[in-house]
Amino acid sequence: MRSGPGGGSRPASQQGMRQHNLALVMSTVAGHGPVSRAAVAGHTGLTRPAVSSLVDELLAAGLLTELGPAANGRVGRPGSALMVSDRGPAGLGLEVGVGHLGACVTDLRGQVRVWTVVESPNAALPPAEVLARLAALASEATAGAAGLGLRPVAAVMAVPGLVADASGTVGSAPNLGWHHVPVADLWPGPLPPRVENEANLGALAELSAHPVAADFIHVSAESGIGAALVVGGRLFTGARGLAGELGHMPVHPDGPPCSCGARGCLERYAAKAAVLRAAGLPPNPAAVTSSGERPGDGIALLAERARAGDARVGRALEEAGRALGTALAGAVNLLDPAAVVLGGAYAELGEWLVPPMRRELAARVTVREWDPGALTVSELGRRGPLLGAALATVRSVLEDPTAVWT
Amino acid sequence: MRSGPGGGSRPASQQGMRQHNLALVMSTVAGHGPVSRAAVAGHTGLTRPAVSSLVDELLAAGLLTELGPAANGRVGRPGSALMVSDRGPAGLGLEVGVGHLGACVTDLRGQVRVWTVVESPNAALPPAEVLARLAALASEATAGAAGLGLRPVAAVMAVPGLVADASGTVGSAPNLGWHHVPVADLWPGPLPPRVENEANLGALAELSAHPVAADFIHVSAESGIGAALVVGGRLFTGARGLAGELGHMPVHPDGPPCSCGARGCLERYAAKAAVLRAAGLPPNPAAVTSSGERPGDGIALLAERARAGDARVGRALEEAGRALGTALAGAVNLLDPAAVVLGGAYAELGEWLVPPMRRELAARVTVREWDPGALTVSELGRRGPLLGAALATVRSVLEDPTAVWT
Repeated sequence: MRSGPGGGSRPASQQGMRQHNLALVMSTVAGHGPVSRAAVAGHTGLTRPAVSSLVDELLAAGLLTELGPAANGRVGRPGSALMVSDRGPAGLGLEVGVGHLGACVTDLRGQVRVWTVVESPNAALPPAEVLARLAALASEATAGAAGLGLRPVAAVMAVPGLVADASGTVGSAPNLGWHHVPVADLWPGPLPPRVENEANLGALAELSAHPVAADFIHVSAESGIGAALVVGGRLFTGARGLAGELGHMPVHPDGPPCSCGARGCLERYAAKAAVLRAAGLPPNPAAVTSSGERPGDGIALLAERARAGDARVGRALEEAGRALGTALAGAVNLLDPAAVVLGGAYAELGEWLVPPMRRELAARVTVREWDPGALTVSELGRRGPLLGAALATVRSVLEDPTAVWT
Repeated sequence: MRSGPGGGSRPASQQGMRQHNLALVMSTVAGHGPVSRAAVAGHTGLTRPAVSSLVDELLAAGLLTELGPAANGRVGRPGSALMVSDRGPAGLGLEVGVGHLGACVTDLRGQVRVWTVVESPNAALPPAEVLARLAALASEATAGAAGLGLRPVAAVMAVPGLVADASGTVGSAPNLGWHHVPVADLWPGPLPPRVENEANLGALAELSAHPVAADFIHVSAESGIGAALVVGGRLFTGARGLAGELGHMPVHPDGPPCSCGARGCLERYAAKAAVLRAAGLPPNPAAVTSSGERPGDGIALLAERARAGDARVGRALEEAGRALGTALAGAVNLLDPAAVVLGGAYAELGEWLVPPMRRELAARVTVREWDPGALTVSELGRRGPLLGAALATVRSVLEDPTAVWT
């Protein structure tokens, strides 16, 4: 017999127990704060003396803070309200997009305290140059955070590509022209980032900032189409960390060739380039749209044309929505998620994509109940991956506060 | 911030710690036995006094057994070899197929000790009658097990359909004609079974008996086509326990109507009825094949005709294999499993299905490395679901030995 993970591979120990209970207190305060020690005991089932001892340790490490006497008027420590600290340990998020770089810092409450996004023609630059620019941006963000009393304890970088998990090497990011880029080795500054797929980080941001459910599929679409699978409130990344390649689900198996070598993949019908082509628009529209969006932003152009009633753009988006719905129907039948969230830049096209997506899902998810309202549009949109990159560190600290013991 | 499962929802306690360590010792002996107490300490990282205390408790509960002095010739308890007991607590597996009923008992070592399968026209009988027949079979199996000193502590029943998880109601098993059948309520005997999808149990048997990997997709095909997703050595069943509906992945979205109401689903191309139709054979072949298989066994007939070189059957299987490969390419891109296992009755058609499946997978899984050898054929085949039903209880006991404390 093979032993399941329930059997565990490490012995349970006093130290592991304390670490678990520190995390339990930390996440309870994060979820319910401001909250008294007595209320933490009530939520967790821990005794009040145990809570007091754990809280003292978290206060000393600067992870929790006290607001002073609680509103009931009684004074003294037992009644004073606890909150997660908005100073001290923080998360640094970084992002390499096709046309921009980003850096942000969030505190342990998950609030954005520093946010910088700059244009950068990353696909036309050598990876080392891109990383040098990003490291400079990271330094500025870290300096800004220091002024707010915040100290990033780890950095996570979002990339639009497949990431080899353990080494932090970007295996393939075709839209950047990156293949086997060892980010940590090339990183010219302090705090080399852990690299993660942007769709996964977008889902993490959704989960943290706007929790829709513990089990959902987050579709992140623009140049490429990725999906992140959230299972039991955690990212599911597959055997090698490469799960979520929705873009290469076969939609019409005998359809036109895709850049991946296969035929009729979802990206061939629904990625930005395919929609622009079907709409009769150039692949990188050079004209600034009248609403002042930046040049080259095909998504903003599609939204503007669709809003103005351009029939060809409307048909192109309808077709993309159908293809997205077909691919997602397969994913929903396979994974049984509670919800599907459309995120990334395509959140801005939700008005036109969601109706055909819902129709396809309703027609094809029939062996179980499927509520059309279970498909929603992310409120974070393009901000998701960078925010998620910073929040990844915040989650780590909440789940193991001892990792930042100084 | 939402708290992740890592934060946990229950406090760690001394009792939970002991339960964890009992499971750790139990699964270590299961995986390495016969094994001495000293070796268990070495494998687990627990101290030898702790191991001795835990082992004493497991011996007293009849979950472990001692083989006497170890081969090194020294006598006394510390050197004597431990094994999981082949008497006492056991798992009872039950199965309702379209044309058969099954019952089996395995001991805690995972060995089959009682195995009975009888023909029964279940789709033509009321569910209560089917369950009455199965309960009678279960009683016989339990009596047989008692004669071997085995006592089933729980029963699990395999059904070819979707199971609503908590209540044990079979939501829908179209090939049986079952809709909302409350199995536990209708069960006329002792030990009412927990109900589980047959594909999931087939995967569990594969995981226990022939572990291929901790992360794999197990395809179970015959009348219906289901998949079970094994992640980190455990079944992944989705938000409502309904994951794995590979049969209704769209293969050709504008293809012929499927019984589910959608168009061009995998089952329309690759389920037994579709293959028989494409091969020009009747849907329920009445003729006994020359090899003596039982009437109505379309799979055996297809295998015999294919082996004899029937070109039309060969083309039908080729087409089914292509459709299976297309649907699985989507699943592999989405889930990043380490392996795909073809199980259930279709394991008997592996010789003809696997080559086109491998070709489709190779052509369509291109954004990551994919080894054609990662698609294998189950050695358990049709035996999988019934075996898995019994092993499900064995796994539960190994993961929480205190559940059977008497």
